[in-house]
Amino acid sequence: MAKLTGKALVAQGGGPTAVINQSVVGVVLEARRFPQITHVYGARHGVSGVLKEDFLDLGQTTTQNLEDVAVTPASGLGSTRDKPDGEYCLKMFKVMQAHDIRYFFYVGGNDSSDTCRIVNEQARATKYDLCCVHVPKTIDNDLVGTDHCPGFGSAAKFVGQAFAGANMDNRALPGVYIGVVMGRHAGFLTAASALGRKFEDDGPHLVYVPERVFDADKFVADVQKVYDKHGRCIIAVSEGVSDKTGAPIITSLKGAEKDSHGNLQLSGTGALGDLLADLIKAKTKIKRIRADTLGYLQRSFLGCISQTDAEEARAVGQKAVQFAAMHGADGSVAIKRVGDYAVNYELIPLDAVAAKTRHMDDAFINAEGNNVTEAFLKYCRPLAGELPTQDRIQAPHVVKIMPNK
Amino acid sequence: MAKLTGKALVAQGGGPTAVINQSVVGVVLEARRFPQITHVYGARHGVSGVLKEDFLDLGQTTTQNLEDVAVTPASGLGSTRDKPDGEYCLKMFKVMQAHDIRYFFYVGGNDSSDTCRIVNEQARATKYDLCCVHVPKTIDNDLVGTDHCPGFGSAAKFVGQAFAGANMDNRALPGVYIGVVMGRHAGFLTAASALGRKFEDDGPHLVYVPERVFDADKFVADVQKVYDKHGRCIIAVSEGVSDKTGAPIITSLKGAEKDSHGNLQLSGTGALGDLLADLIKAKTKIKRIRADTLGYLQRSFLGCISQTDAEEARAVGQKAVQFAAMHGADGSVAIKRVGDYAVNYELIPLDAVAAKTRHMDDAFINAEGNNVTEAFLKYCRPLAGELPTQDRIQAPHVVKIMPNK
Repeated sequence: MAKLTGKALVAQGGGPTAVINQSVVGVVLEARRFPQITHVYGARHGVSGVLKEDFLDLGQTTTQNLEDVAVTPASGLGSTRDKPDGEYCLKMFKVMQAHDIRYFFYVGGNDSSDTCRIVNEQARATKYDLCCVHVPKTIDNDLVGTDHCPGFGSAAKFVGQAFAGANMDNRALPGVYIGVVMGRHAGFLTAASALGRKFEDDGPHLVYVPERVFDADKFVADVQKVYDKHGRCIIAVSEGVSDKTGAPIITSLKGAEKDSHGNLQLSGTGALGDLLADLIKAKTKIKRIRADTLGYLQRSFLGCISQTDAEEARAVGQKAVQFAAMHGADGSVAIKRVGDYAVNYELIPLDAVAAKTRHMDDAFINAEGNNVTEAFLKYCRPLAGELPTQDRIQAPHVVKIMPNK
Repeated sequence: MAKLTGKALVAQGGGPTAVINQSVVGVVLEARRFPQITHVYGARHGVSGVLKEDFLDLGQTTTQNLEDVAVTPASGLGSTRDKPDGEYCLKMFKVMQAHDIRYFFYVGGNDSSDTCRIVNEQARATKYDLCCVHVPKTIDNDLVGTDHCPGFGSAAKFVGQAFAGANMDNRALPGVYIGVVMGRHAGFLTAASALGRKFEDDGPHLVYVPERVFDADKFVADVQKVYDKHGRCIIAVSEGVSDKTGAPIITSLKGAEKDSHGNLQLSGTGALGDLLADLIKAKTKIKRIRADTLGYLQRSFLGCISQTDAEEARAVGQKAVQFAAMHGADGSVAIKRVGDYAVNYELIPLDAVAAKTRHMDDAFINAEGNNVTEAFLKYCRPLAGELPTQDRIQAPHVVKIMPNK
């Protein structure tokens, strides 16, 4: 493809992450290097902003503003759950054509990569010269073709720090603690709950991911066993755990809501945690049972960022522009792990990524299906980076001198 | 009182905080300066550890270990919800007497200060020379006689960062977001949700604290009004909000659990958030409604600490030892604000603090009872410290060129 001259458009789709703005800033600053890219526009609220011709002229931002936005969680341009069909795309093209937009960078997860694929196909079908690059992001880490996804590392760090703290809190006031973790149908983020384990008896003691069938009786037995051993039990459960029929545990509850992609509402409710807490209350004699649903903080908490994740999120934005502007290539930017720890960036075909879901490797889950393996921790640690210092009091017990009663 | 020669005992009671270990470390390191304090023991799990003679010899810790523990959230010695009565105290004295313990430092909130008061009275009644000092901590900030409580600043910072992120997430994908915040019957921590507001339309747009009657109809009307104005709405609600009869909103739900102090279980369940989300769903036409319960992360998240809070938590431990060892005084350490921003430390009588609950000043709550005032933010900002950088994209809109349909 000859070098396209025209404007670039960047947009963000799907659930925000702590570093998704890094990718937009990567696109904007990199695009400024290429003379054939005449302007960089940002569509507000993803593809819906294209339809509404709701663009910001990102060429008219200061570098300082962009750098401040880069460290800010959530999608600075706004996001959307809209999934364009053919008609939707046709309307988008009319707007893009009117503005002479020739480069489209869409930062998002697997739904957004599918959107990107549809837009790209429509562009070809209508013979509109448009270079489409999907820039990966998702805290779920469930994109295929990439070693990991920008956004996951920071969310993993948050989850690791949350469970490290919950473990110590639970050690101070023992009982059962359930933490429900995001990630939809992939268990990576739930597995990251184990990142902060330091001592032999540290929690989470049990980790349930959607890659394994969730059996309520086995769950209760697991909890009882850990409680008998340690006098306490910390449990990480993925919001997407399912029973043997494949039905999410949460579907038995009323009011389950689906989005426009047909996805079930798994987040933004404490229902699953409360359900599991009630189950333990009903089936055991354990008294102090608490359930937290980590919720939107996992993807949006201000000030919990993995440095590696932030740098890679910036880099995928920069590489997207390079692949497009230097090679005129369509595709999805993928991260390849080439060292321990180093990465390269590649462009892979859009249809290799679109609407596909990656799951955890078998090697990352223990045989019993209720914990993570050292292989997972080895995979995950460089992505989340080092967790803050924590320690226990290391002091000898005082010899008891009271007479036995 | 003459200088008492003997051992010191330090313990932690009630819910942990992010900086409660700073206070223990403050006690331990300061106690080492006084020759008449022969040993420093730490009771595991508060008063229950005294009863069980479960002591650690904190003189045999390294300074490095203590400093690492100091930056670790949750009670390193373990905590308890036990509330000693006369008989319980008598058993404690026998153990204390056997070990020649003459200084008792109890780090805790209003329940723990009451425990401290009972122990102190029993000591006098049995003519056992014991110096009792209560070292304040609570994320609820509800102790009387002190400007604020160690532990609150870090929790306030966490809540501020959580809502700052939730605000941006909600701006990216608009709807209604409810965040339920700890604090029992005091609204300080919920009010801290406003710390991260920066732009005019930033959330939380509504803040409900237990100091004002929670009216469900007014709540729904407030939400609708904000939603009509901004197309979105962020709400911070205290776990302890009550109706006009004084009954917590959560009591209408089944399975409410009380602890040994007669306190209702307000935390460790997503029930209140889900209840309020259902209310909005039922009474309005707003579609995207999400509720998070911030949960135990507020007090135990690893790596979210206010520097001022950490320093003051260390200082109250140090001052407790100084008041006891230099002046032989019983009491509770209180923080007095003497500048903007600086503090002094005083010792106030135990019965001035014990089992009393401080509420938010009227000046901290707006007239409508659904938001905080600038006076509160001025009070709170130095305690939480500066929040991480956040910014919006500052770019002009692109002029629309599409013909009107």
